[in-house]
Amino acid sequence: MGVMTGVATTRRSRITPEREAELYTAVLDLLREVGYDALTMDAVAARTRSSKATLYRQWGGKAELVVKAVRCIKPGNTADIDTGSLRGDLLALVGREDDAVMEQNSALLRGLAMAIHTNPDLLQALQELLVEPEMKEFHRVIRRAVDRGEVRADNPALEYMVHMMLGAFATRALLEQRPPTRAFLTSYVDAVVLPALGVPTDR
Amino acid sequence: MGVMTGVATTRRSRITPEREAELYTAVLDLLREVGYDALTMDAVAARTRSSKATLYRQWGGKAELVVKAVRCIKPGNTADIDTGSLRGDLLALVGREDDAVMEQNSALLRGLAMAIHTNPDLLQALQELLVEPEMKEFHRVIRRAVDRGEVRADNPALEYMVHMMLGAFATRALLEQRPPTRAFLTSYVDAVVLPALGVPTDR
Repeated sequence: MGVMTGVATTRRSRITPEREAELYTAVLDLLREVGYDALTMDAVAARTRSSKATLYRQWGGKAELVVKAVRCIKPGNTADIDTGSLRGDLLALVGREDDAVMEQNSALLRGLAMAIHTNPDLLQALQELLVEPEMKEFHRVIRRAVDRGEVRADNPALEYMVHMMLGAFATRALLEQRPPTRAFLTSYVDAVVLPALGVPTDR
Repeated sequence: MGVMTGVATTRRSRITPEREAELYTAVLDLLREVGYDALTMDAVAARTRSSKATLYRQWGGKAELVVKAVRCIKPGNTADIDTGSLRGDLLALVGREDDAVMEQNSALLRGLAMAIHTNPDLLQALQELLVEPEMKEFHRVIRRAVDRGEVRADNPALEYMVHMMLGAFATRALLEQRPPTRAFLTSYVDAVVLPALGVPTDR
């Protein structure tokens, strides 16, 4: 990646940031519609009214273009989540994106599922740009719950936060073919996540 | 599907069951290696030393061939799992396939993740042939736990068994790119599944 990125950065200065954002949006849309393997540079060129030659000159190839597009996704803002209870914080976290954005992310996950296996750069970009920032927020919220005495610091479910959360998300997206709505995630947090963490719920 | 299946069944009588099994094995291997979208009839023909014409005459197309291949996967035997405790039953269930088989299923899931979205027949075959029989076993084991009084019949986590289990599996397979080993699943059952179901563990 190192050399390619350097080259691409230099070359990218030829197009405006607005045009670049437009291209990345089109690439993300195509990923959701047809998936990584079926996405062609021809389709990107047609959708964005660019020439294929320009795309290749600018990004080098499909993998680079897709990684750059994924890097553009900004997770929702979570900086001021601090409700005073773990349940409140978790529900605020899972509820901060509206259902339409969740449907989009869900489609993106389906579109990239196979490709991340055969493209290590893509997996790394997804982890660094989407999963890690997301899990960092969950861990921040949980650290406060541990400090408050709500959760024991040695609770074994703590190391499975990503499996519980991303697991529910992936099962909905892949198997049930439904986006993980706020209602679903709220119910899941109450039924699974809080009991696993040893936090009493109303049930 | 109805008509196509009828036609394929009639035509299939021309090849031996052994040859058919060989072809399906090759298709499943290719799915794991390259995924559904990148799988071509040319590759299947080359791998199995058949002619493309034969494949099309026999199965009609890639979707039909893949669905038939997926239909051949037999989940491990679970009929005699009854250890007397929910923990014992769950660990027997998640431990019945050896780690090599789990790695294969994990690769298959990656290979099919995008395709099941655009091919409803494929999703239906996967659900009927892999997910539903699997979840039926989990529910059988849980019903006995409810009857024994280990789990409350109205525990809200009961409806998320598939999310908890398949979730852990999918997160390992897609994000961590590691097969869900017996050791991982045992630890996950103890840390997440049993506490969510309100079953006391040693911790």
